[in-house]
Amino acid sequence: MLTGRSPSTRSDDRVRPDVAVVGAGPIGLAIAWRCAARGLRVEVHDPASGSGASAVAAGMLSPVAEAYFGERQLTGLLLASAARWPAFAAELTEATGAEFGYRTEGTLMVGLTGDDLAEARRLWAYQQGLGLPVTPLRPTELRDREPALAPRVRGGALAPTDHQVDPRLLVPALRTAARRSGAVLVPQPVRHLSEVDARITVVAAGCGAAALTGLPVRPVKGQVLRLRAPDGVAPGFRHVIRGYADGEQVYLVPRVDGEVVLGATVEERSDTTVTAGAVLRLLRAGVDLLPELAEYDLVEAVAGLRPGTPDNAPILGPLPGRPDVLAATGHHRHGIVLTPVTADLIADLVTTGVPDPLLAPFRPDRFSSNSPESTGAVGVGGLAGSGAVGVGDRTMEED
Amino acid sequence: MLTGRSPSTRSDDRVRPDVAVVGAGPIGLAIAWRCAARGLRVEVHDPASGSGASAVAAGMLSPVAEAYFGERQLTGLLLASAARWPAFAAELTEATGAEFGYRTEGTLMVGLTGDDLAEARRLWAYQQGLGLPVTPLRPTELRDREPALAPRVRGGALAPTDHQVDPRLLVPALRTAARRSGAVLVPQPVRHLSEVDARITVVAAGCGAAALTGLPVRPVKGQVLRLRAPDGVAPGFRHVIRGYADGEQVYLVPRVDGEVVLGATVEERSDTTVTAGAVLRLLRAGVDLLPELAEYDLVEAVAGLRPGTPDNAPILGPLPGRPDVLAATGHHRHGIVLTPVTADLIADLVTTGVPDPLLAPFRPDRFSSNSPESTGAVGVGGLAGSGAVGVGDRTMEED
Repeated sequence: MLTGRSPSTRSDDRVRPDVAVVGAGPIGLAIAWRCAARGLRVEVHDPASGSGASAVAAGMLSPVAEAYFGERQLTGLLLASAARWPAFAAELTEATGAEFGYRTEGTLMVGLTGDDLAEARRLWAYQQGLGLPVTPLRPTELRDREPALAPRVRGGALAPTDHQVDPRLLVPALRTAARRSGAVLVPQPVRHLSEVDARITVVAAGCGAAALTGLPVRPVKGQVLRLRAPDGVAPGFRHVIRGYADGEQVYLVPRVDGEVVLGATVEERSDTTVTAGAVLRLLRAGVDLLPELAEYDLVEAVAGLRPGTPDNAPILGPLPGRPDVLAATGHHRHGIVLTPVTADLIADLVTTGVPDPLLAPFRPDRFSSNSPESTGAVGVGGLAGSGAVGVGDRTMEED
Repeated sequence: MLTGRSPSTRSDDRVRPDVAVVGAGPIGLAIAWRCAARGLRVEVHDPASGSGASAVAAGMLSPVAEAYFGERQLTGLLLASAARWPAFAAELTEATGAEFGYRTEGTLMVGLTGDDLAEARRLWAYQQGLGLPVTPLRPTELRDREPALAPRVRGGALAPTDHQVDPRLLVPALRTAARRSGAVLVPQPVRHLSEVDARITVVAAGCGAAALTGLPVRPVKGQVLRLRAPDGVAPGFRHVIRGYADGEQVYLVPRVDGEVVLGATVEERSDTTVTAGAVLRLLRAGVDLLPELAEYDLVEAVAGLRPGTPDNAPILGPLPGRPDVLAATGHHRHGIVLTPVTADLIADLVTTGVPDPLLAPFRPDRFSSNSPESTGAVGVGGLAGSGAVGVGDRTMEED
């Protein structure tokens, strides 16, 4: 707990929190955990923790396979966060004892046809050019690693440092960690930021951030299937497999309990209906790459909405003109891998008021016409120093 | 109600029914309705009415399209029942006011590729040889009828007398009709026929008939998808479409509310898991035949168990040596179309004790080694005559 000051109180006699986090998905919970672990009073507001994009996400930790042309800054953040995952996972295990499906077998990237392989190779060359660990495999090497791959898969490459976690286990583990560190979960919706009374408010509300902040976060629909190996056995493959199959890009994520996540579409739509055409495309590509999937149970078909942004990168930092409100949203397809770095850097910002240089490319004001890059303004609030008495938006503070 | 006798009573003071029907699917309910409408006291036992094969069935009334090689007697019964459907539907509407999706637009049978069309034409020739109404259509005629068909569909034929009904609406309508006629629904399972106390017991328990009677009824798994046209509009096609598509046989049944039923696998399995391979095959064939389906919502994937028999024909009549127990099961893929004729003929048998000649090929004892076809035995119980006092198994009767 904070020391050195009398806690301010609210009309309902609850102690005013230092930090209110809006959104109890993985990002919000991890921020809450990190802040509470530093002795701050933290509330997390969400009527349905873990019901957003994380409930659909596959949980790939793939900075290498997801290093795409023209996204250098994002790739840097993905790599920084992936590098934090081993320690983050160890801490979470220590804090909770929970199992959350963290696996480090690596990722195989494959091409089904010659055209698919040619397209994949262009990307691998780019990734290798960045110095990333991508090892092309001969077909025999590929099949030695995963004999279940279809014989007609033309070629592949290994990204040994691209791992996975199970978001549906991660979120409850993070809830436990946040609670054990002292964070309070408030199962109420926040429809307007004025409903939240805290020194610093962190908006980690995924797509909901748009309505709360005006930030350009838009829903990007993804349809995902969950299959299950018959008879309760583990899937016949261990690596995450990312494939191009007749021009379709899919991933297959095997879990130890027999589940396989097969995804995902990327659609500029805001509905969450599951369409016949998307399920057909996913299944066709999946079965073409791994024929044994045809015998798997299809246990779920679901659509989620990723929080997309104009430049596909997250939005991390204070709102323009609102140093007491920090955005931690817009993680698009990368929310799970970006959880550790987001939590650490936002918690740092909350406690020190000083943004880590890693955050610079992801500031909320980069979408404003008069962004501080031209004005020189920084305007970051925070609960500075140890024993952190907030500076926040002092005009709204009583102490 | 029956007259001319004092009702027998049971230990719990309920009046002993004339007829106990085990199973409140469409067959059991229609029998109950017909029997109750003739003044018999009827109880129907089922803990979950309509939860069996009918919950999955598409509801095609297709004696023509389902007239297969080597099934002449079954085809005769299908035709007899389909001929009863218009009056049956009218009576059900009059009795209940319910809507149950009875549609008479006819069925288009199509072949996607040249090979598919060749296979289809063999069957159409056979059906025409039986004198059934099958009209080959030129491609332009086919597309005039259903412009939504894929341009590459090679050809088709019209079966104008093959219609449809919605089983999920039919069952509640039949429940209402049965109740209004005086039948009593008892929502309890029957695990052994000795638990049922009635003059005549009718076993209309689908796959459950095997355990109750020892009859050779086995589960035949069928996986079925339900799609829905987007935006709440009706599907872009009106006919039931039965297609061969790259060797896959599928049907597409459009409902006025936008639903399309896409089915079905035929698998010698007794589980009800939905498999990725089956969904893939159904969707691929469906979308190949009607490309607009790709844009439809996939709202349900489900598997049901049809009550199959050794000769694919239903089992209708008294159990060998048990004239008081009538089977009405084993309808396999034809339960909905066979509902009217089954109900009428079983109700006739209950009230008169005399089997209609139509029933002869479908007697339960046809699977016995000493079937009455060799012994000449008939042994049919019933509640004979008007004011029908049961003859049944007189050794078990008290009056």
